[in-house]
Amino acid sequence: MAANDTITLYDLQLASGATISPFVWATKLAVAHKGLAMDIVPGGFTGIPERTGGKTERLPAIVDDGEWVLDSWLIAEHLDAKYPDRPTLIPDPSIVPLTQALEGWLWSTAVGPWMTCYLKSYRDRSVQADHEYVTTSRERMFGGRRIEDIIVGREDRLPQISANLELMRNTLRDHAWFGGDQPNYADHRLLACFLWLASVCDTPALAADDPLRDWIDRGFDLYGGLGRHPGLSDIFGLEQRPGDPELFNRNPMANGLTKRNTGPQSTAKETAMMKGQPQPAG
Amino acid sequence: MAANDTITLYDLQLASGATISPFVWATKLAVAHKGLAMDIVPGGFTGIPERTGGKTERLPAIVDDGEWVLDSWLIAEHLDAKYPDRPTLIPDPSIVPLTQALEGWLWSTAVGPWMTCYLKSYRDRSVQADHEYVTTSRERMFGGRRIEDIIVGREDRLPQISANLELMRNTLRDHAWFGGDQPNYADHRLLACFLWLASVCDTPALAADDPLRDWIDRGFDLYGGLGRHPGLSDIFGLEQRPGDPELFNRNPMANGLTKRNTGPQSTAKETAMMKGQPQPAG
Repeated sequence: MAANDTITLYDLQLASGATISPFVWATKLAVAHKGLAMDIVPGGFTGIPERTGGKTERLPAIVDDGEWVLDSWLIAEHLDAKYPDRPTLIPDPSIVPLTQALEGWLWSTAVGPWMTCYLKSYRDRSVQADHEYVTTSRERMFGGRRIEDIIVGREDRLPQISANLELMRNTLRDHAWFGGDQPNYADHRLLACFLWLASVCDTPALAADDPLRDWIDRGFDLYGGLGRHPGLSDIFGLEQRPGDPELFNRNPMANGLTKRNTGPQSTAKETAMMKGQPQPAG
Repeated sequence: MAANDTITLYDLQLASGATISPFVWATKLAVAHKGLAMDIVPGGFTGIPERTGGKTERLPAIVDDGEWVLDSWLIAEHLDAKYPDRPTLIPDPSIVPLTQALEGWLWSTAVGPWMTCYLKSYRDRSVQADHEYVTTSRERMFGGRRIEDIIVGREDRLPQISANLELMRNTLRDHAWFGGDQPNYADHRLLACFLWLASVCDTPALAADDPLRDWIDRGFDLYGGLGRHPGLSDIFGLEQRPGDPELFNRNPMANGLTKRNTGPQSTAKETAMMKGQPQPAG
């Protein structure tokens, strides 16, 4: 058992003290889910090997009873293995590939595109010592373009990024959490992307009435409001301008993949539509 | 216990006897996963209410010891609840939303686009009595366009559909099944889309050396080769023409979301790249 139920967690922070890394956010949620306290070692990108005694170049890292554990997935697996009597993070092995696939979708659909919108505030909010590293490494990632140029036109990109999240809205229409009735590490991985967003966005990314808001707000409130750090920005409040796509689908069809056939009454309307007949009520 | 361990399953078939519906394919895999035999009631789209005594307009439907169960998801849940000592289909509630999200991605990325390529063979292979219904209902779905017109240009669409499946390839690079070490209902739902593809494709959809082939082949071989019905076509053999996109990524980067940080050696190459330094070997 961790001394005083406390885990030492090496954070990756912005100047505000909010976490800049989605992977560290996921780990913070995971540690809190296990009911363990965190002894946070602060810092930014600069000096990770020095802070960790050469143990790692990347964060998160934890020390649990003197045992170093690196990597957000390995940490989650470590916590489940070491504390099996506490709430489970990964209750079945299939949650790993399924969550990694959905997380991959969220990164290509939103996190990557949002990075092109928020890279300047991502850099400007980083700790002073990180500014040069963030600038040069990220400009290299984006083919040598200047950060100030990368974000140009973001007001035209943000509405479409929001519109592209319909897959997640469809899923959450029928489920409180990706974990089912309660969150698990699948929720932590996906919520971490929105916590990252809140950490770096200097203008809203989603509509105030986005259907995702319910899950996001409940997620940010988890574990005593871990996602309510004062350094975070409001991600909600994007407004649709003339010519913008709908920020989310206000009239979603019954989702053909999740709806349940409970007999002819449940399918009569769809059947009439397919046959081009007048549709019964309901 | 089902009499003689046998479930009555109302199939939705092509003229070949192969199943036309991905939802029925998923149910067949699910019943077989539980080690139960199937007493198949054959038939196509026409006459479902008559065959089922008015119980349903949609298939699959099963009768288990006299109890009717409709809907592929409800059937899976029924089988787990009634036969808890047999291999589990949905070992954790979070598998439902996660699988539905990934299945939604697969439908919008591939099943829908493939339908625009294979709609003619989908209709031509259906049982004779279904031809008119399939033609008129599907042409209505596609805004009144004729089936022969909908499939035009498919040779230009198929390579991009294949290229768009990289998310699934990335996930399966690290996992034998979506279920982990063994398949579960997540695999059944996703394999069912490829079984549907094999049922209706009259020209290959994926490259012969597609990395997805390993999982698909093992999936079609499951439960005594349930996915090896003689009515199915070979989905592999698509060839890249000049000007086509790569059918799959032959040089995938280490996936940043799934790779494991095991210390500075494991991240040195990426660190050098980010810093614009010469990259160490490995």
